[in-house]
Amino acid sequence: MPATSGPATPDHTLKAHTLKPSLVRAYGAQSQTGPIEPMTIERRALLPDDVAIDILYCGVCHSDIHMIRGEWGEQHYPLVPGHEFVGRVCAVGAAVTRFSPGDIAGVGCMVDSCCACDNCRAGLEQYCTQGATLTYASPDTRGPGQTQGGYCERIVVRERFVVKVPEGADLATTAPLLCSGVTTFSPMQHWRLGSGQRFAVIGLGGLGHMALKLAVSRGAEATVFTTSADKAKDAYAMGAKDVVVWQPAATDPIPLASELANRFDFMLSTIPAPFDVSPFLPLIRQDGTFVNVGAPGAIAGVSGGGLWNQRRSLVGSCIGGMPETQEVVDYCHANAIRPQIELIRPDQITEAFARVERKDVRYRFVIDLAPKRG
Amino acid sequence: MPATSGPATPDHTLKAHTLKPSLVRAYGAQSQTGPIEPMTIERRALLPDDVAIDILYCGVCHSDIHMIRGEWGEQHYPLVPGHEFVGRVCAVGAAVTRFSPGDIAGVGCMVDSCCACDNCRAGLEQYCTQGATLTYASPDTRGPGQTQGGYCERIVVRERFVVKVPEGADLATTAPLLCSGVTTFSPMQHWRLGSGQRFAVIGLGGLGHMALKLAVSRGAEATVFTTSADKAKDAYAMGAKDVVVWQPAATDPIPLASELANRFDFMLSTIPAPFDVSPFLPLIRQDGTFVNVGAPGAIAGVSGGGLWNQRRSLVGSCIGGMPETQEVVDYCHANAIRPQIELIRPDQITEAFARVERKDVRYRFVIDLAPKRG
Repeated sequence: MPATSGPATPDHTLKAHTLKPSLVRAYGAQSQTGPIEPMTIERRALLPDDVAIDILYCGVCHSDIHMIRGEWGEQHYPLVPGHEFVGRVCAVGAAVTRFSPGDIAGVGCMVDSCCACDNCRAGLEQYCTQGATLTYASPDTRGPGQTQGGYCERIVVRERFVVKVPEGADLATTAPLLCSGVTTFSPMQHWRLGSGQRFAVIGLGGLGHMALKLAVSRGAEATVFTTSADKAKDAYAMGAKDVVVWQPAATDPIPLASELANRFDFMLSTIPAPFDVSPFLPLIRQDGTFVNVGAPGAIAGVSGGGLWNQRRSLVGSCIGGMPETQEVVDYCHANAIRPQIELIRPDQITEAFARVERKDVRYRFVIDLAPKRG
Repeated sequence: MPATSGPATPDHTLKAHTLKPSLVRAYGAQSQTGPIEPMTIERRALLPDDVAIDILYCGVCHSDIHMIRGEWGEQHYPLVPGHEFVGRVCAVGAAVTRFSPGDIAGVGCMVDSCCACDNCRAGLEQYCTQGATLTYASPDTRGPGQTQGGYCERIVVRERFVVKVPEGADLATTAPLLCSGVTTFSPMQHWRLGSGQRFAVIGLGGLGHMALKLAVSRGAEATVFTTSADKAKDAYAMGAKDVVVWQPAATDPIPLASELANRFDFMLSTIPAPFDVSPFLPLIRQDGTFVNVGAPGAIAGVSGGGLWNQRRSLVGSCIGGMPETQEVVDYCHANAIRPQIELIRPDQITEAFARVERKDVRYRFVIDLAPKRG
C-alpha cells in the first residue's frame, strides 16, 4: 500500500521531476468506520501517456460513502475516495498529445481499462471485458497498490481517461458532471430520451437533480419521485412538471398510482440502496424503459407479468464511456446546465458524509481543494 | 355462464342460421381440480364482423393447465381452454371481408380488443390499453358470460382476430404457431435477433422448441438450456449448436458457467413458473437482452449490478399482435418450420396435461377435433 499517514509534504517540484513518484496531501479513511482525515499518499511517476493534475474541486458521491463503509464489498485502507473532479494539468508524459501543463482537465470514475476489447474500442471503457480500473479502490494497473481518488491535491491519470474542460467553464460545478452528470446522461443517450417523452426520476439527490436538469434540457416532460416533500420547490425550479412524494414503506407507496399507470416512457432510479421496483413497473408505458443507475444491490418486485405488460424493459447503466464523459461536460457547458452544489473545505467532509446519509444536501457537496493564495 | 354440461348437440345447421346462438361440443374443466371432460357450450350468434370456425386442431399450451388450476388467478367454471387452433370457416357475418366459408383460418390467444387505442392501431392488440379479450376465461365483450376456448368443435371470433392459413399448410402443425410460434417470434422481431447472434433458449418445451427452430432459421447460433438431459439429441437435431443441462436447485445451477460469461446476445426464457434469473444474467453479453415469455410470476435474483454490468436488459414480451401472428404463420409455412407434435384425441387431454406437467411431451400436444368421415 503506497499510502502513509501523517502530515502531507506536497512535492511542488513535480514539473521538473515527472519521472519520480511524488508525495501529496490527501483526505481519506483509515478504516471502514473512520472519519475522513488528512494523510499523505504517493502518486506514481508519470508513464509516457500519463497526465498529472493538481486537483481543484472534487465532488462527494454517495458511492464514496458506500465504498468506505464496505457496503459494496470489503475494502483496503487507507482509502482515498473521490471520482468526479477537475484540476489543472501540471505535467504530462512524453507521449501525451491532448494536454499541456496549465490546461483544465477532468477525471471521472475510471482511470484505466484494457483499451483493446470490443467495448473499449467502442468507447465503452466502463464495460471493458477485462474490467475497468476504478479511480479509487481498484488494484492499480499502472503502479503499486490500489488506486486512490480525488480527495487529494494531485493525481496521475492515463491520458485516455482525462477529459478536457471547456474554457470558461465554472470549475466547481463542472466536477460533479464527471460522475453524476455522465451517469444520468449516458442512459438518456443510449435509450434516446427525447423531446416530448414523459420522463421520471426517482430520487432527487446528486444524480437525481442532474438527471432532472438533463431531461428537461432534452425537452422531456419530467416528473420527480422524492421521499423529501421539502425538495418539491427545488424540483419545480429545476424544471419538473410534477413532483410525487412517495413513501417506500407504505402499503401504497405511490399516492394515486393508478392515475400514473402506463404513463412514463423512461424512468430512472437513483435510489442508492436495494429497492422494490414493483410500485414503479405499472407506471411504465408501452415499450418504456426503467433504468437503474443508483446502486448495485438487489432489485425486488420483478415479475414476468409486470414486464410482459406493455413490453417493459428493466435495464442497468453504469457511468459512461470516455467519449460520453467528454460529451456531457461539453453539453452542460454549452447549455449552461450546472449542478446545484454546496462548496465545502476538506475538514468538512466527514460532516458532509453524515448529511448525505440523512438526505441533507442541496444537491451535491464539492470539496474545494484549490491551493489558497493571498 | 353460457356453458351447460352433458352430451353435446352440435348445431350443424349453422350456415343457414348465423343469427342464432349455437350449441357445440367442447372439452373443459368443471372445477379447478377436475379432469377435462366433454360438455356442451353455447356459441353466440354472429355479429356482422364475426367469423364462425369449425375447429380442426387445437394445441395444448402449458398456460391451459395453469389457468384451469387457478395458478394464474381464480377462474370461473366450466372453463374450456385452448388458444392455438386452426379450423375451417363455416359462416361469416355480413361485414366480413377477408374470409369466406371453406377458408382455413387460425386463432390465437386473443379474440377482441378495443381496436382504437394507440397499441391496437399499431397492431399490438395484445397490449391494448383497455385490456385484450383472451380467447378463454375473459369476460366476453361480444356475448354473454366469459370466453371459452378452442378445445371445442366450433368458435365465433371477431374477424380482426382470425388469421389466414396459407394454402397447403399442414394444419395440425400450424395450430401451435398461433401461441407458441408467435410468442417466441414476436420478441425476436422486436429486439431484432439476427444472423450470427448468439441465442439461448431456456426450456425446451412447446415454446422452447419453437424458439429454437425460429432462431436457427434466422441464422442465430443457438444454445439450449434444458433440465432434461434426454432432450439433448432432439435439440441438436433441431439445429442447436450447444446444449447445457442445468439444475435450477443446485448450488451451481449451470455447469461451467464462467465459460459462458458475457456470451449471449439474446436469451429467451420459457420457464413456465417463477424462477431465479441470477444464474443467467452474467451470461448476457454487452447490450444483450434477456426476455421472459414463460410465466407471469416472480423473477428473483435481479440486481442493479447484474444489469449495470454490460448494460443488460431484462424484458418481457406477451404473445404477439395480429399482424405478427399472421406473419409467423406465413413465415413458418414459407420456411417449412413446423413444431414437433403428438396428435391426441379429446379423451386423452387429461392424460396429456399430466404428461406436460412431468415434461413428458415431444414437444406439443395437438388435439384432433376434426369430424371423422367414413
